[in-house]
Amino acid sequence: MSFRHHIVSCNNYDPARVVPLFAGRDRVGLLRHDNAAALRRFSDVFAVADDRVNLVARGDVAAVSRAVDAVVDALVAEKQVPKWRNETFDVAPRWGAPAVFRLDRGAVPFFGTRAYGVHLNGYLRQSGSLHLWVGRRAPDKRVAPDKLDNIVAGGIGNGHGLQETLLKEGEEEASIPRNLTSDALPAGVVSYRMESEFGVRDDVLFVFDLEMPADFVPTNQDGEIAHFELMPASAVLDRVRTSDDFKFNVNLVILDFALRHGILRPDDLEYLDVATGLHRPLD
Amino acid sequence: MSFRHHIVSCNNYDPARVVPLFAGRDRVGLLRHDNAAALRRFSDVFAVADDRVNLVARGDVAAVSRAVDAVVDALVAEKQVPKWRNETFDVAPRWGAPAVFRLDRGAVPFFGTRAYGVHLNGYLRQSGSLHLWVGRRAPDKRVAPDKLDNIVAGGIGNGHGLQETLLKEGEEEASIPRNLTSDALPAGVVSYRMESEFGVRDDVLFVFDLEMPADFVPTNQDGEIAHFELMPASAVLDRVRTSDDFKFNVNLVILDFALRHGILRPDDLEYLDVATGLHRPLD
Repeated sequence: MSFRHHIVSCNNYDPARVVPLFAGRDRVGLLRHDNAAALRRFSDVFAVADDRVNLVARGDVAAVSRAVDAVVDALVAEKQVPKWRNETFDVAPRWGAPAVFRLDRGAVPFFGTRAYGVHLNGYLRQSGSLHLWVGRRAPDKRVAPDKLDNIVAGGIGNGHGLQETLLKEGEEEASIPRNLTSDALPAGVVSYRMESEFGVRDDVLFVFDLEMPADFVPTNQDGEIAHFELMPASAVLDRVRTSDDFKFNVNLVILDFALRHGILRPDDLEYLDVATGLHRPLD
Repeated sequence: MSFRHHIVSCNNYDPARVVPLFAGRDRVGLLRHDNAAALRRFSDVFAVADDRVNLVARGDVAAVSRAVDAVVDALVAEKQVPKWRNETFDVAPRWGAPAVFRLDRGAVPFFGTRAYGVHLNGYLRQSGSLHLWVGRRAPDKRVAPDKLDNIVAGGIGNGHGLQETLLKEGEEEASIPRNLTSDALPAGVVSYRMESEFGVRDDVLFVFDLEMPADFVPTNQDGEIAHFELMPASAVLDRVRTSDDFKFNVNLVILDFALRHGILRPDDLEYLDVATGLHRPLD
């Protein structure tokens, strides 16, 4: 095992296997060839060419979203898309740009639209060394059951915004009071592009660090985390290097934390791989 | 002006304008077409093809370095390479790999061999906000005279190593005692690839943060810095956004510092450009 292994896994995207999805002049997704082919029969919504797919449904955001939803319905019935999650993500050419349509979270990898999440490193200094709060994901989670996770993490759903998602997930996942979470410091992003079972994950994770009070013990409220454990950051890093115990993308968030806080040091043979492997440019 | 402007400037490299320089199976440099053509007549040292240049000088590191030095001598005489700096950089396929040869620093851009440097952010917290020590480069510096700089920065010359370069430059540039500099925390790298007057800069900067004692005032010893000033980090960031006052690559180091310390925040329209623009993969 190695740190590189996790970076490579999260960046196994191969441009030869996909075509772009365009809305007007803007690319808004990445469709695997088989997924693009499956859209041919919905010609009032998508125009499928060999080298690209164009969104042709017309109307405002609500109308285009309804047209895409009808396609998703059919794909779910055929098990080409996992079942509805009833949480929608904005689809836009860039972060902050107006949404072209809203898409059920379960269908995001099928269309390869960019998804945004927030991950919080909850840390404290104990006996002079950094420790991290680590959660174990519930066994019934759809993605990465039983895997280790950050203290708080979540996708940024339509209408919530970055800061609100952070505060809301902090409460639900770890019972962190909003006024404590709001002290979290933004520390950049982790970005990667990977092929998953259903398509392409084109993910941007906004990373925050929060120094936790020594007497605070996180408890889960929404059933998504089975339990929490406080671990020395160096032990967390060793576990990242030697196992797949952490959820695939959490490995990258921890590597970023370890780099920024000097836990991973330049004499490590993988230092430059890590330092240049966590921030895929957003083309 | 914008943050993006600095990122684009440092990454203006165009692969169509260069051919790779190989030592055996390993790429060790990037030669602009005109530079590659200038090597044709040194056929005992370099074999120049249309799509690549091969190092053909044989022998140990010292012998190959002497053969390349003879070429550099001729190029300096023709002003295709700026004059000798009498400081050599290791040329190797990767960081930590054995050197293939050593190259005078002045000739590094001509051959486009990867160069490694170290940059130190000297910071302190004053009245609750982060401040950065900023140096103004001497007016007679060969590169970027009069520009603003980090408190300490330097290239990693042959034989010095990363840690020793940091300690040595800390003493020479800012009179920081070695036992203070050795507390600096490594915080990742900044990497970029740019075309310069003489060729290609393929640079990796190891970044360190050092919290400075409140009563410490840096003073320069080697004549490379004209004077130092303590500035609020937010003012430094504004100056990066609105001017070219800082040395080209120092803009990127400051953006990295501002990201990691939450001075640049996600509501900034350029946040994702910065967060994904500072770490060029090392292909």
